Amino acid sequence: MQPKAETPLAFAQAHGDEILRELIDFASIPSVSTDPAYQPHIARAAAWVAERMRLAGFENVAVHPTEGHPIVTGDWLKAPGAPTILVYGHYDVQPPDPLEKWKSPPFEPQVRDGRLYARGVSDDKGPMLIPIKTAEAFMRTIGRLPINVKLVIEGEEERGSAHLGGFVQAHAEALAADFVLSADGAMWRPDEPSVTVANRGICALEFAVTGAAKDLHSGRHGGGIANPLHAIAELVASLHDAQGRIAVAGFYDDVRPPSNAARAAIAELPFSEERYLSTLGAPGGFGEAGYSLLERQWLRPTLELNGLWGGYRGPGTKTVIPTEARAKITCRLVPDQEPKAVAQAIIRHLQAHCPDGVRLTIDADEGHGSKAYAIPEDHPGLLLAERVLKEVYGKDSLRVRMGATIPIGLIFREALGAETVFFSFSTADEDYHAPNEFFRLQRLSDGLKAWIRYWELLGQEGLRRSS
Amino acid sequence: MQPKAETPLAFAQAHGDEILRELIDFASIPSVSTDPAYQPHIARAAAWVAERMRLAGFENVAVHPTEGHPIVTGDWLKAPGAPTILVYGHYDVQPPDPLEKWKSPPFEPQVRDGRLYARGVSDDKGPMLIPIKTAEAFMRTIGRLPINVKLVIEGEEERGSAHLGGFVQAHAEALAADFVLSADGAMWRPDEPSVTVANRGICALEFAVTGAAKDLHSGRHGGGIANPLHAIAELVASLHDAQGRIAVAGFYDDVRPPSNAARAAIAELPFSEERYLSTLGAPGGFGEAGYSLLERQWLRPTLELNGLWGGYRGPGTKTVIPTEARAKITCRLVPDQEPKAVAQAIIRHLQAHCPDGVRLTIDADEGHGSKAYAIPEDHPGLLLAERVLKEVYGKDSLRVRMGATIPIGLIFREALGAETVFFSFSTADEDYHAPNEFFRLQRLSDGLKAWIRYWELLGQEGLRRSS
Repeated sequence: MQPKAETPLAFAQAHGDEILRELIDFASIPSVSTDPAYQPHIARAAAWVAERMRLAGFENVAVHPTEGHPIVTGDWLKAPGAPTILVYGHYDVQPPDPLEKWKSPPFEPQVRDGRLYARGVSDDKGPMLIPIKTAEAFMRTIGRLPINVKLVIEGEEERGSAHLGGFVQAHAEALAADFVLSADGAMWRPDEPSVTVANRGICALEFAVTGAAKDLHSGRHGGGIANPLHAIAELVASLHDAQGRIAVAGFYDDVRPPSNAARAAIAELPFSEERYLSTLGAPGGFGEAGYSLLERQWLRPTLELNGLWGGYRGPGTKTVIPTEARAKITCRLVPDQEPKAVAQAIIRHLQAHCPDGVRLTIDADEGHGSKAYAIPEDHPGLLLAERVLKEVYGKDSLRVRMGATIPIGLIFREALGAETVFFSFSTADEDYHAPNEFFRLQRLSDGLKAWIRYWELLGQEGLRRSS
Repeated sequence: MQPKAETPLAFAQAHGDEILRELIDFASIPSVSTDPAYQPHIARAAAWVAERMRLAGFENVAVHPTEGHPIVTGDWLKAPGAPTILVYGHYDVQPPDPLEKWKSPPFEPQVRDGRLYARGVSDDKGPMLIPIKTAEAFMRTIGRLPINVKLVIEGEEERGSAHLGGFVQAHAEALAADFVLSADGAMWRPDEPSVTVANRGICALEFAVTGAAKDLHSGRHGGGIANPLHAIAELVASLHDAQGRIAVAGFYDDVRPPSNAARAAIAELPFSEERYLSTLGAPGGFGEAGYSLLERQWLRPTLELNGLWGGYRGPGTKTVIPTEARAKITCRLVPDQEPKAVAQAIIRHLQAHCPDGVRLTIDADEGHGSKAYAIPEDHPGLLLAERVLKEVYGKDSLRVRMGATIPIGLIFREALGAETVFFSFSTADEDYHAPNEFFRLQRLSDGLKAWIRYWELLGQEGLRRSS
């Protein structure tokens, strides 16, 4: 056993290489939650998390089966009088495809230029490991934590956290906390600290358009019958107008116009649309008229196709009219939009607009629905996060919103009455739902420093509203 | 060696099982022409054809390399004064996908219920084997053919016969013939004999719509930038109006309205739209207003998507805005339409209609272009085909057109001044560009009987216009 370092921070800094090796080990597990083929790896990842929690000094560590993937919990509750936080993270990852676009295999983590490349390192395995190693740093130095900490680590975040809500409700007493400190989420920019104060909701559905009962020769039969590829294109095109506004009746019914305050706050952020588009390699901006790019991403709902396919995709030509074409849709929702109501509006639109000569079938993914979330702007956990980020980075952090969805904000508010402070150290540019996902090694050490400091200050000062 | 049968027909009938075994052997070679991965099998198939031609008694058998796949030729020219025909066929086949829909593997031929199932058995390996075995039946009985026969068997029919035209032009003298008797083409119905007197042309292109330089998270970025899936759907939808008429400016410029005679002939055919749609399992007919279903398939041009894809196709949800979406198009053309001009009209349309925020790239497959073809209605080779079919089937055959494309009609007319009589014994319902392609064993024996009789009558009577 190594001699104890003097402070938790010194300990974490002295063990940086070991922490990186652990993250590499964790990221080697292909814990893809959305595809049943990866099921055994999901189980391995849950067991890995439980073992790390035990080694860090957490007690009552348990892997709870759900109807989906297991949830891992643990706690350390020996700081009477101090606040209690619930730490959230997830061990599941996005699918790795398209595989051919990865420079190194997605589940063989590789360090290049100060970054660790692998599926899931940024979302959320790297950030999720930080609170566990934070606890270990306290336990291996001062032998205790300065606050009471509970952990809830799930395995279904990347497919909508379908079973987390029920689990949290069923274990509301055991999970009760003053607030939630989330290791998931992301900083907005690599060069400026930020805290996320709101995120959009989501709903998902998939639909198919079917023509003849089998693939047909497009020469012999073309002209006589409907082509499902034409029909699905017509349906998809009908979902937006030419300027990108959603053309589904009822879609905007519950959408409040953004407040002037929210729009003004966005206008004040240092953001160049031109630089953003150039970074992405996009030929131009596009979207609903009357809103800036950031407003469209943060304050307005979207309806995006995530997949569209039918017919022949190989080299050369295959003269076929395919029997079927399919499309996958997700929407991002803003406050007051109900996922089910939005999905129903889209279903009614598809049914009303389906062309002649084909059949429409729709699978609404009702498990994959979540409302939008925003934390009260004066929440003490949020203010403490800003204070710690200023210490770590030496400058004020930005308050930003997020276009993406983290369903936990609403889940914890509804089940526990607890708000969620997002305190993740991934960065929005780290290609987490794309090939070559990476996590900056600097963020790993920044994150350890910040989490240690956050717990120290929370233990010293307790929960109080800052002036 | 077996004793010689008395007549070529008796010989062919006595050797039916052996001929079937040879076809099974031939169909086991996955000679897919459109995908370079199958290249070695293309070479094997060409060699297989050459060897069967030699064994049948053809002379000067040769496998000619081209810039694409090889062309196999041979001849037997020892019937001075008798007509000379050029027999055409092809040894290449369509791609077998979707593989999972085949009941038996596509290149492991299986006999079920009087049908041989395998990719390419109907189009064109079964029909193509018939003239070779016809020659063998004559050679092994009377020791000679009643007419002069040349063979040209290509390996690129399924990708547009790109190199056949140049080859036939370069070998015009060696291939010169009174007319072409094609083993490719198909009977219209399983229960009625028919001859095909016209077919549509083709042109092909593929295009891509590109947004950002890489796949993006649709939550974080959605709303800010264009989604290539929306853009491609809009482009594809713009190609037709709601009734299925092609909306591309200039597309119909060279299309003559169908003649009253052609429309009347189609109206007289025994054809039920309802039964046709029910056979295909299609929910309803669809297409250009003002034309019957058969008119749309035989007399009118089409623009069909054969493939459309982008984004995530796996199980569950992946919240991605893909970098790219792609589409494959083929058009079927009617007389006077030029493939290149039609492709150019589509390219102009795509360029004019491409939405903001994405880039359009187009690959026009100029090799894959062919004009429409029709044989003069009083051609003696055509009339003889009808006479033979009446002998074999005991009833008049129907004159039909074909929606599909066989580029050879124009190729042989332009290079050799020879018209093409389609005398194939495949049937249009045999699922040749679809899973579970099959060839009726009855058609194999019908075909041998008909080809033997055709050559006998042509040898006895020579070329003359019937009254």
